[in-house]
This record gives sequence, C-alpha cells and structure tokens, in this order.
Amino acid sequence: MPETTVDTVACVGAGVIGGGWVAHFLARGFDVRAWDPAPDAAAKLARLVDAAWPALTQLGLAEGASRDRLRITETLAEAVEGAGFVQESAPEDLPLKQKLLADIDAVTPARVVIASSTSGYGMSEMQVAAKTPERLVVGHPFNPPYLIPLVEVVGGRLTAAWAVEQAGEFYRRVGKTVLTMTRDVPGFVANRLQEALWREALHMVANDEATVEQIDLAITDGPGLRWPVQGPMLTFHLAGGEGGMAHMLDHFGPSLKSPWTRLQAPELTPELRDAVVAGCDEEAGSRSIAELVAERDRAIIAIQQAVGEARRG
Amino acid sequence: MPETTVDTVACVGAGVIGGGWVAHFLARGFDVRAWDPAPDAAAKLARLVDAAWPALTQLGLAEGASRDRLRITETLAEAVEGAGFVQESAPEDLPLKQKLLADIDAVTPARVVIASSTSGYGMSEMQVAAKTPERLVVGHPFNPPYLIPLVEVVGGRLTAAWAVEQAGEFYRRVGKTVLTMTRDVPGFVANRLQEALWREALHMVANDEATVEQIDLAITDGPGLRWPVQGPMLTFHLAGGEGGMAHMLDHFGPSLKSPWTRLQAPELTPELRDAVVAGCDEEAGSRSIAELVAERDRAIIAIQQAVGEARRG
Repeated sequence: MPETTVDTVACVGAGVIGGGWVAHFLARGFDVRAWDPAPDAAAKLARLVDAAWPALTQLGLAEGASRDRLRITETLAEAVEGAGFVQESAPEDLPLKQKLLADIDAVTPARVVIASSTSGYGMSEMQVAAKTPERLVVGHPFNPPYLIPLVEVVGGRLTAAWAVEQAGEFYRRVGKTVLTMTRDVPGFVANRLQEALWREALHMVANDEATVEQIDLAITDGPGLRWPVQGPMLTFHLAGGEGGMAHMLDHFGPSLKSPWTRLQAPELTPELRDAVVAGCDEEAGSRSIAELVAERDRAIIAIQQAVGEARRG
Repeated sequence: MPETTVDTVACVGAGVIGGGWVAHFLARGFDVRAWDPAPDAAAKLARLVDAAWPALTQLGLAEGASRDRLRITETLAEAVEGAGFVQESAPEDLPLKQKLLADIDAVTPARVVIASSTSGYGMSEMQVAAKTPERLVVGHPFNPPYLIPLVEVVGGRLTAAWAVEQAGEFYRRVGKTVLTMTRDVPGFVANRLQEALWREALHMVANDEATVEQIDLAITDGPGLRWPVQGPMLTFHLAGGEGGMAHMLDHFGPSLKSPWTRLQAPELTPELRDAVVAGCDEEAGSRSIAELVAERDRAIIAIQQAVGEARRG
C-alpha cells in the first residue's frame, strides 16, 4: 500500500500556480521544498508567498505552519528527497511536461504520487516518457490555489487506481474540494466551461461587440453573483420558477438554437432533457425550489456586501 | 423632452422575471401595475413577491415601499394607464413578443419608454409591428431582477437615442448597473458568455463527460468564486502573475488552439492581444497587480464565508 502520511511536499515549478501551491502547503503546516530553474524564481516566490500570507493567516494557519518551512533547492533531486507528495506546476508546454515528469519520476521513490497542475493536457499524453507512470495523476487547481478549493483529479491510461485515490485523499486532507473524473477529457470540467466563456469573450472583443470592461461588468454584476452559490445547472433550475429545470428546458429549449454564442448546442433530446432534470433534482436533494431561492437570495446579498467591502480595502 | 419622473411602473408578464421586476419596483417605492393573462398568475406573483420580500427588507426598502402598492389589472390597458415606464417580461417567443409590444405600444402614451426583458432577441426584430417603435428598448435583467444589478440596455434600428438614454437613467435611478450596448448583438453580452458555458455544460452531460452535480461543483468551488469580484478578463490578468494579461496571453495563447471546449477561439492576432491587454490596463486603472491580488483574496474569503452562512440558513 502506498504511503499516506505526508509531511513534506515538493513543488516543482514556482510561478503563479506553483507558488500558490507552496503558500497553501506552508499554511497547512507542511515542510515545502520548491525547485524552479528560472533565475528570478526565488525572489518572485518570496513575494508571492508574502502576498498570500495575510489571507492565509485570516483563514487560520495549521499548527506549526510557517513561511520558514520553505526550502528552495538547487536541484530537482533535492526538492523531491523525502517528499511524500509532488506537485508539478511547470509552464503549459507538452514536450516540457513530458520530459519534466519523466525527470521527476526518475528521482522520486516509486510509491510517491506525482500530480501535475496542468490546465488541460491529459495525463495519458504527459506520462509517456516516465518509467513508473502508474503514480502520475493530474491535480488541477485554480488560481489562487491557496484560496480556491477546487482540484480536478484524473489519471491517464497508465495511472493506477490507487494513485488517483491517494491524490484525492491527500487534497481533501489539505482542505480541497476534489472533483475526480473517470475520463480524461481535455480541459477537464471547470476549464472547459471557463474556456467556452473566455473564447466567446475574445470573439466579442475581436468583433467590437463589447469592451474588456463591459465583459467583466457583465459577469461581476450579472451571473457571476450567482455562481459561487449555485452553479449553472441549479441557477437554471431556479430560472424555471416553480416548475424547475423541467419547465426551464421545455420553455427555453428553443433558445439553444439561437445565435447567442458561437458555440453550437447539442441536440436537446428527451434523454438529455431528462438527464439534466434528474441531475438537478438529485443535486437539490431535499431542498425545495422555495428553499433554494431563499438560500440564493441570502448568498447574493452577502456576496455583494463582501465584494463591496473587499474593494474598499 | 421625454417624461423622466416616474412613480408608477407597469409590468407586463409576471412570471419569474416579470414577478422579480414587480418585487424590485415595489421595494424601490413605486406603485406597480401588473398584467399577465395566465389564469394562475396572480397567486404565483403573490408567492414570488412574498419570497423576495425578506431579502429586499434586509437590503433596505425605499421610503413608503409596500407590497400593498401592487395592483393586478384585468387588462393590459389598465396596467399601462398612468405608468411612467413599462417593463415587458413575456415568454421568449418572437411572434408573441412582436404582437405584445405592438399591443402595449398602442395603449401607452408615446413618450413613455417600453423596455423588454428579452433574453436575446434584438429590438430590431421585435419592434416591427409597433406604431411608435422609437421608444422601444431592450432592458435585459438577470434572475432575480430584485438582486442582480445588471441590466443590459440596447435599442433597435427604429429606436430613438433618447429612449435608450432614458431607460439607462431610469434603471440607474432604481439601483441597477447599466450596460448600454451600441450594437444589437444576439444574446447581448452576459447571455452570450453564460450561454457558451451552458452549452458546453450540456455537451458534457450529453457525452457522459461530467454529471450535473460535477458541473455545478466545478463552478461553485472553482472559477465561480472569482467572478463576482473580477470578471473573466481581470481574472486572467492576475493569472499572468506580475506580467499581467500580456504575459498570460503570450504564455497561454497556444491553449486557444487546444480542444478544451467545443467553441473555436478567434485568431489571437497582435491587434486582439493588444486590445485585451489595453482593456485590462484601463479597467485596472491605478490598481497594481499586487493590489488586485489583495482585493481578490479578501473578496474570495468573504464570499466563501457568505455562501457557507447562506447555505446553513
């Protein structure tokens, strides 16, 4: 059985994402070893951890957590020595990731899980050069990794089930929300959704349909206020009024044919309609539409107050 | 010059959106007249206003605001009589909207602005049957209209500039964030962005790539936590680290070619790159990347606390 007691984490790559992981693991009370070949990496990492620390302190540090428990190493081998978990956050470049993961694999004991922060490559395509690919998984965070809970976990064709399971357990132990995928879909779940929105936004700027500022305003003062409390599915469950998602799809279904975005919608077959309705019912659980409305309303008011205060500083 | 002092608002259509507008206008101290031909409309509207009232009371009611100032009328003509602003929120059906807007137009004094809550039809295609189409505008809200600030305002080919301006002024006076578009793009801004995400989500369910619940979790615990404080553009401005959006686009630009969503991205020309970078700089204004990071971090923590409390009730 794989090792499950981790007290040292290795972070390979210490840019915005890798550095954010460093801050998170330090705050959770781990010893952290970081390696990054960029000449100015150490200074940037120090600034990043310093910038994150007030937020992490406010959230509550684990016992013994300290910025002094970070060691920046000269070599990759020193970084992974004694580490119980390795988080790779190198630039998004497939050949680079393939080589780096093989290099990490070569110097890390075989039962230690190595997770990649990749935004969208599948592990199947990244693990090809590694000698022990079964412990390689994707562990995809969101910026900043020290605050956004979501981590998407998925293995590649050569990944063992125990490695996926152990990565999920580890992330949960350090306070993350883990979304484990059984299929290796490019971009995983959250980035596919976010990327669709981002590409539509770029098209709008490219075509002079909206400015950068209008796009941000449309989200921050519009649907963005709903999404931290109810995702796109439950949001539309409530758009259907007392009839819920069933009414919403039966009523707005034709809008899927409208040229409201450059992305073509799938055919709204009876099967898809029923799957979405059933999924919403399952997610809502015992909460009635009226209770979900009350929950949403309380949250939106509090979110607006929170954002207002954060902006005032 | 058009009338600008409004004390009575007519709401035509009183479903989820129309009813939400009714609640909002009542809370802001207006007399509201609502008309909806559905047989159970009055009872549904009463429940909707009752459900919204605690939130509106918490936010602070305008002086004299009262649920008793709602009158449900038997006819459309009675609803618009004496109204200084008309908000139409009928089902999303083009022929129905064309006929209804013409009917409203026929019984409403010529200088009163009539706004449609349509989710995506252009006013140019909706105003065709009206005799005085120059005062017809789109005033597109988000559910629930009594809490989400955004209203997208845009005229059609036959709409006069004064009507667009007056609608914007009126919405701002009642506490809305107004996004005025100069071009009539299907779906406006926010729905184009939201719809791209929604369609990708439906594709994922249709292809068994993710469940309804995973999709919601990916947003609520992932990028959804950032969007109320910084929209997609400023979010990626911070993903670029100290180099901002310029570094982000130069670094992640190739990802636009990745199959991370079914939506093809536009070509990242130097012009598009520069426009996005300049737009972010303009939006950030005097705030440095470090200040934006601090603002984001404060907001995300507060948002998570707010959502947690709202869920606990």
